[in-house]
Amino acid sequence: MLEIGKLPPQMLERLIINPINASKIKRPEVIIRPKTGEDCAALYMKDEYCVASTDPITGAQKEIGYLAVHINCNDIAASGAMPIGIMLTLLLPKESTEEVIQEIMAGVQEATNELGVEILGGHTEITDAVNKPILSATAIGKTCKRNFISTGGAQVGQDVIMTKWAGSEGTAIISRDYERELKGRIPEEMLCKAQDMKGFLSVLPEARLAVEHGATALHDATEGGILGAVWEVADCSGTGIEIFLDKIPIKDETKMICKEAGISPYSLISSGTLVISTFYGEDLVRKLKAEGIEAAIIGRITSDGKYYLENGKKQVLAQPMSDAIYQVDFKKE
Amino acid sequence: MLEIGKLPPQMLERLIINPINASKIKRPEVIIRPKTGEDCAALYMKDEYCVASTDPITGAQKEIGYLAVHINCNDIAASGAMPIGIMLTLLLPKESTEEVIQEIMAGVQEATNELGVEILGGHTEITDAVNKPILSATAIGKTCKRNFISTGGAQVGQDVIMTKWAGSEGTAIISRDYERELKGRIPEEMLCKAQDMKGFLSVLPEARLAVEHGATALHDATEGGILGAVWEVADCSGTGIEIFLDKIPIKDETKMICKEAGISPYSLISSGTLVISTFYGEDLVRKLKAEGIEAAIIGRITSDGKYYLENGKKQVLAQPMSDAIYQVDFKKE
Repeated sequence: MLEIGKLPPQMLERLIINPINASKIKRPEVIIRPKTGEDCAALYMKDEYCVASTDPITGAQKEIGYLAVHINCNDIAASGAMPIGIMLTLLLPKESTEEVIQEIMAGVQEATNELGVEILGGHTEITDAVNKPILSATAIGKTCKRNFISTGGAQVGQDVIMTKWAGSEGTAIISRDYERELKGRIPEEMLCKAQDMKGFLSVLPEARLAVEHGATALHDATEGGILGAVWEVADCSGTGIEIFLDKIPIKDETKMICKEAGISPYSLISSGTLVISTFYGEDLVRKLKAEGIEAAIIGRITSDGKYYLENGKKQVLAQPMSDAIYQVDFKKE
Repeated sequence: MLEIGKLPPQMLERLIINPINASKIKRPEVIIRPKTGEDCAALYMKDEYCVASTDPITGAQKEIGYLAVHINCNDIAASGAMPIGIMLTLLLPKESTEEVIQEIMAGVQEATNELGVEILGGHTEITDAVNKPILSATAIGKTCKRNFISTGGAQVGQDVIMTKWAGSEGTAIISRDYERELKGRIPEEMLCKAQDMKGFLSVLPEARLAVEHGATALHDATEGGILGAVWEVADCSGTGIEIFLDKIPIKDETKMICKEAGISPYSLISSGTLVISTFYGEDLVRKLKAEGIEAAIIGRITSDGKYYLENGKKQVLAQPMSDAIYQVDFKKE
């Protein structure tokens, strides 16, 4: 049982500050590192764009540290920038134990080590406003002007590429949260594979390749899934889009789980999937595959109208509403 | 009653994006402005330090928008930098109404207009993880290398200045939250004055003056109050400090309210109070007063040991624990 308010100083040092300072990752851009009393992070920017993105993790309790870092760094990478560091606001209910904080920080450190980003600072507080841990993160990165890419940079005639598989993150979440419901309904082996899909969260490698190979729009597919992401690319770019539904790669385990859960994999959260708009689609897909990243051309940018083709039938691609993950419903058989 | 998940697109446009775009404040540094689908903010930094700070507002329900902007921009100003913009993560329970969101955004806009900072983007989500609205904000600012000032820059022999009055923010919060308890115990006129103290939240004007007049350490007094803030300045600087308790300005309404609440005003949250360490204390106090900012020399930086003097008696200044606001206790008379 912890007291309401900021984490007591000794506990803050032990659970948060010391592990951060012990981290191997020290970026040359970082001027001021986390310390009780230093409220600001400072980064040196040399005639560059500073790119920032913020997103909370409220859902997936166990891995919120790992997820918060990856999700936010993905947004930075999807702007053509390189993530430098991350700031964390951790809010905990008073029933929390030290172990919960340690687990979250371990997840944060696993992800920051994978990505080579530094923890820049933040705020940890025990509060009765939350009933489970919430981690809100802000990632900060940099890029030169020339490499900066927004969601809204797609141009008529370009190929639309996606990496990895539709609904991959959602598949991992559902297979873990509904393990009991899924057992017996889908083969054990598929359930294991589904749970393993959480290992494909980062878009950093493909974003780097896309920037080097002429991408003009990038967007990662989070809530709303792949169809939500491509809709947003067209909307932000002021263009039309045409998606070939049967070209979208989906894993068998995703298909099975979505069928049981009564949801569409095309609207299912898919962090780790990057949407890329470029005139050199085939070339880039070849390069992505050569680096071991699954990728496919799934559509093209048109002058107007947002559509998808399913079994040869052209249908309107609607603005994404809430993610399919909130509609999961395992009906009794 | 709202659905769990990200705010539906039309509601997001109406309640969040449109009001932001209607704002008068457009900073020249901002490259990408908020839009559904654009996950990143981008700022152009010209050979500068990028300074960032993050803090959530979980306590004061009514004014969380206004507070979140000021608190975070204060941290930026207290590093010698100028706040450019702010990113917001708003988490709401599903019982929330549109009016709640509108009120919060109105508070955000009031503060951003006062400070001339831009809203850079963020994330709005309905979640069962919170039982009241939580606004987590990250402010981003810039400064040239020369003007960057950390909490840990104090030097032996310097004067320690504070602006405004100890416990000012806490006085405003307690006088509003415990209005019923306080009525009859302190004069009506004092209660009104106490409630008005929320108008002194910003440290931007004094931070600018301090930077121009040779300050080498700055820190704003939030949780832990003025004594917490000066302890942190000495701790971060690796110096000692000596504080003259009777030199600390306190309003009569703060004294009365703290007495009734059984707490110390010196450990009471005091956003709006800036601690300044400088060799030119008297000169700077004169300049602050000339601009209408209350200020006083309250101590000096020593080579070691953290102390305060009360009625001529030297006492150890302890590391700040949780803020006095969490210990408020109106005993029955």
